[in-house]
Amino acid sequence: MMKNILLASTSTLFGEEYLAYLLPELKSFFKDISEIIFIPFARPGGISHDEYTEKVTEVFHSLNIKVSGLHTFTDPVEAIQKAEGFFTGGGNTFLLVQQLHQLNLMEDLKMAVEVGTPYLGTSAGSNIGGLNMKNTNDMPIVYPSDFTTMGLVPFNINAHYLDPDPNSTHNGETRETRIKEFHVFNDTPVVGLREGSWIRVQGEQVTTAGNKPSRIFRQGMAPYELEPGSVLRF
Amino acid sequence: MMKNILLASTSTLFGEEYLAYLLPELKSFFKDISEIIFIPFARPGGISHDEYTEKVTEVFHSLNIKVSGLHTFTDPVEAIQKAEGFFTGGGNTFLLVQQLHQLNLMEDLKMAVEVGTPYLGTSAGSNIGGLNMKNTNDMPIVYPSDFTTMGLVPFNINAHYLDPDPNSTHNGETRETRIKEFHVFNDTPVVGLREGSWIRVQGEQVTTAGNKPSRIFRQGMAPYELEPGSVLRF
Repeated sequence: MMKNILLASTSTLFGEEYLAYLLPELKSFFKDISEIIFIPFARPGGISHDEYTEKVTEVFHSLNIKVSGLHTFTDPVEAIQKAEGFFTGGGNTFLLVQQLHQLNLMEDLKMAVEVGTPYLGTSAGSNIGGLNMKNTNDMPIVYPSDFTTMGLVPFNINAHYLDPDPNSTHNGETRETRIKEFHVFNDTPVVGLREGSWIRVQGEQVTTAGNKPSRIFRQGMAPYELEPGSVLRF
Repeated sequence: MMKNILLASTSTLFGEEYLAYLLPELKSFFKDISEIIFIPFARPGGISHDEYTEKVTEVFHSLNIKVSGLHTFTDPVEAIQKAEGFFTGGGNTFLLVQQLHQLNLMEDLKMAVEVGTPYLGTSAGSNIGGLNMKNTNDMPIVYPSDFTTMGLVPFNINAHYLDPDPNSTHNGETRETRIKEFHVFNDTPVVGLREGSWIRVQGEQVTTAGNKPSRIFRQGMAPYELEPGSVLRF
């Protein structure tokens, strides 16, 4: 089977329901699939893994797809190997990466996706599709044993990409400055995914998608915009 | 000698010159000191360590204080032990912590400050005065071997603390949400330092200072505000 991956900047557009803007896309993405495994580990409290899984279950009900939380399996490696599809939700990327490394599941998940099991990620769940988590916007509330992630695509993702606010009086760096500073120490390309945009992998083809252009950052080059539907080739 | 520490949220207020708002305070803070060591390691490019040190040198000239960059010493441990005072500037906290651990200087710096050598930090330089760097806002552009920092104060600092923007249509978490999520996994108190505020340590007394209240976050408690001049006791 060929690779089938969707990495979205966000789960929810402002004022909309959870995953609503992605539903038309997910209908074809998860076609002929009756059950997926949901990975809730990014969620740092607020709601439990069970509650987070329930929220996802309700949305996938409209697609006639059953949802099981990865945290409910006694043998999660076997569950990953047998899965028909995956969805990793957002939360805190440090926590998600720390958990997947601690449970020794990062490599198994990567292998299952690389042989063709469809993988949907949003936010932190998309960040782990990149080579490493060094372009997350999250707070390092836990210490992961490693920043390496699945490398389903040959670049990193900056989810929730934000353009500079010309009216800001605050001294925090802009997102663009942070990514530029990343490129002082790293040569990995970074795709800044604005909310409403996503990356689609079908076999060896990687394209941008959604309602906004993506911003591409490469070491030693000026950043540039790519319209939805563009092929990403580095 | 007693501990003498100033940990500021930011180096620069909007529209002002570098360190300008702190100068009156620094005049008494660094009284009778003729030379300090500047630690430029947080700076992730843009300007070199030499250029960053030169920028600081110009400001300290008005206080009649000479500045030497820590990166210029062949024996930085000896330099730290003999120093009359320290200033660690801002930049990227991951980079600063990674560098200080890699060069094996975190512990020496801590010891020198604990026996009374005055320490000024701004932004990333203040974050390393806390117990660990888990409340930085920075992007993890490098992987530190450890998140532990100097623990000059018995809490963590969130520099550049920002109140929630009621008009935001963006899905990033607010600063308050991030710190609340930190407290799911950690019981370390966090002081949210708004720009223009700082923490002052004189011997065993730790107080808030500056032009704005600080916001205090403790595990299992509602956040609360502390006016400048309040004693921090956890």
